[in-house]
Amino acid sequence: MSVTVVGSIAFDAVRTPFGSRDRMLGGSAVHFALAAAFFDTVHVVGPVGDDFGDAEYEVLRARGVDTADIEHVPGGRTFFWRGEYGWDLNTRETIETELNVFAHFQPKLSEASRCADVLFLGNIQPDLQREVRAQCTQARFVALDSMNLWIDIARDSLIETIGGVDCLLLNDAELRQLTREPTIVRAARQVREWGPRVVVAKQGEYGAAVLTGEGFFGLPAFPLETVVDPTGAGDCFAGGFMGYIAAHPDGEVDDDILRRAMAYGTALASFNVEEFGVERVARLTPDEVADRVSELQRITSFIEKPIALRD
Amino acid sequence: MSVTVVGSIAFDAVRTPFGSRDRMLGGSAVHFALAAAFFDTVHVVGPVGDDFGDAEYEVLRARGVDTADIEHVPGGRTFFWRGEYGWDLNTRETIETELNVFAHFQPKLSEASRCADVLFLGNIQPDLQREVRAQCTQARFVALDSMNLWIDIARDSLIETIGGVDCLLLNDAELRQLTREPTIVRAARQVREWGPRVVVAKQGEYGAAVLTGEGFFGLPAFPLETVVDPTGAGDCFAGGFMGYIAAHPDGEVDDDILRRAMAYGTALASFNVEEFGVERVARLTPDEVADRVSELQRITSFIEKPIALRD
Repeated sequence: MSVTVVGSIAFDAVRTPFGSRDRMLGGSAVHFALAAAFFDTVHVVGPVGDDFGDAEYEVLRARGVDTADIEHVPGGRTFFWRGEYGWDLNTRETIETELNVFAHFQPKLSEASRCADVLFLGNIQPDLQREVRAQCTQARFVALDSMNLWIDIARDSLIETIGGVDCLLLNDAELRQLTREPTIVRAARQVREWGPRVVVAKQGEYGAAVLTGEGFFGLPAFPLETVVDPTGAGDCFAGGFMGYIAAHPDGEVDDDILRRAMAYGTALASFNVEEFGVERVARLTPDEVADRVSELQRITSFIEKPIALRD
Repeated sequence: MSVTVVGSIAFDAVRTPFGSRDRMLGGSAVHFALAAAFFDTVHVVGPVGDDFGDAEYEVLRARGVDTADIEHVPGGRTFFWRGEYGWDLNTRETIETELNVFAHFQPKLSEASRCADVLFLGNIQPDLQREVRAQCTQARFVALDSMNLWIDIARDSLIETIGGVDCLLLNDAELRQLTREPTIVRAARQVREWGPRVVVAKQGEYGAAVLTGEGFFGLPAFPLETVVDPTGAGDCFAGGFMGYIAAHPDGEVDDDILRRAMAYGTALASFNVEEFGVERVARLTPDEVADRVSELQRITSFIEKPIALRD
């Protein structure tokens, strides 16, 4: 069993109130892969340029990530993003985006990537997501992420692509924008009518919620003293979430599995934001992940006790 | 044992995507009292004008709320607020505020109000909150709410007032603004240095978190198909939270009590937003509250299961 992810592989330049990095490894596929690799073999599909070197490959390989489908475009440069966060890290401004090799990206999947059990379509153009989806005929669970750009300029294609996956992961504001519904409960119902059985609303610093036909589960984000860099947190969440599902190949992806998948995604995302880029997750240990999931369970549960209320 | 609340008593004019009301009963003390009344006797302290009639008193009295300290100012008009909400109810604009009798409000507490076991200082001028606090010498648990206006124009007085209470309840954005700290973990630590042992960060549609020296507890909001009118939800939450504490007079207000208090506050607030103003909570039954707390427990809990992670 294995996991395939298609998405961006990037160099990011980030400034936050806690410091800055001029050029660090990033991209949705990278953040996803480093989290999902705790659970299963991960195949990364995405393009890089000449500037993507051994040091970058090594970060992925050290975690056992399969980099065979990272496509090196000779003469090209790797996707580059520069952004800046506000004082409480809840606002972010894109200063610069260079698509570079990403501009003409056509996903090419090896046999190993095509045979994956679990597939994550990171935030790329929805037509490309659909092509990758079509190639992975053996995937038993497929999830998709997207963003406001595609809702703005390619909504019909995005909805068609959503129709072919099991799970939509989206920021809650984008979920409302996409469905034109004011609450995530109504938005999720609309999405389920398009096809997916599972909808995950990512809520940034507030956590995430998963909605299925059977029920709802809400989980706050892990509380942190300091958030250094939120870049990639959503993809890291997705990596933990999908990785957990990949690690449970027997039986259906029921609400119990989804809830625990949310917990692992949330735990991994909380490490991701503690330092810049992939710095923290790259040296994370299994014990640290397990401890944080336990802690998350403790800080989100309460025990009911009957009480007589006045009429 | 009983609960005293000081705060606004108002007529609200509200427009949301789901309809409008030209003049409905509202105000922080009213929303608080109707929720807290499920747990204990509530004394409401606040001013009203000639336009506040039997129908309005009756809404409170039907719940057993003590209205003896509602001060009728002859010739005056009741506080009036007009606001409008955006399509997903996450933005709101104040169109009109008439302070009316609230402009010269000097809280006068009867013996019954002064003897309360639990005191809630709703969002009014911090000097007035401090005066009320000083009068309630027997209160074993005192909480305070405030808003950005007082942080902007009376921060020093607000911090002094906060120093005299056990618990600060504030929107998370205001908590950051007040403390100038970027995360609620750091903000809560700063607040605890000023005096309160307990900090509650209200997060609107995302739920709430409580932070003490002993720990953290986060609880998502109850998911609703439709949110009709968020007005008063925060005060209704406070009413459920403080009411639950009032109903447990023996022993200290420990983290277990606080967690369950959060659940009752969250449940009550979720009913509050289902209809305009106090319409839903005014006819709410104890069984409905209990059922929603149970449901909240179900939709926020997950069961840990050990899993072997890859190194």
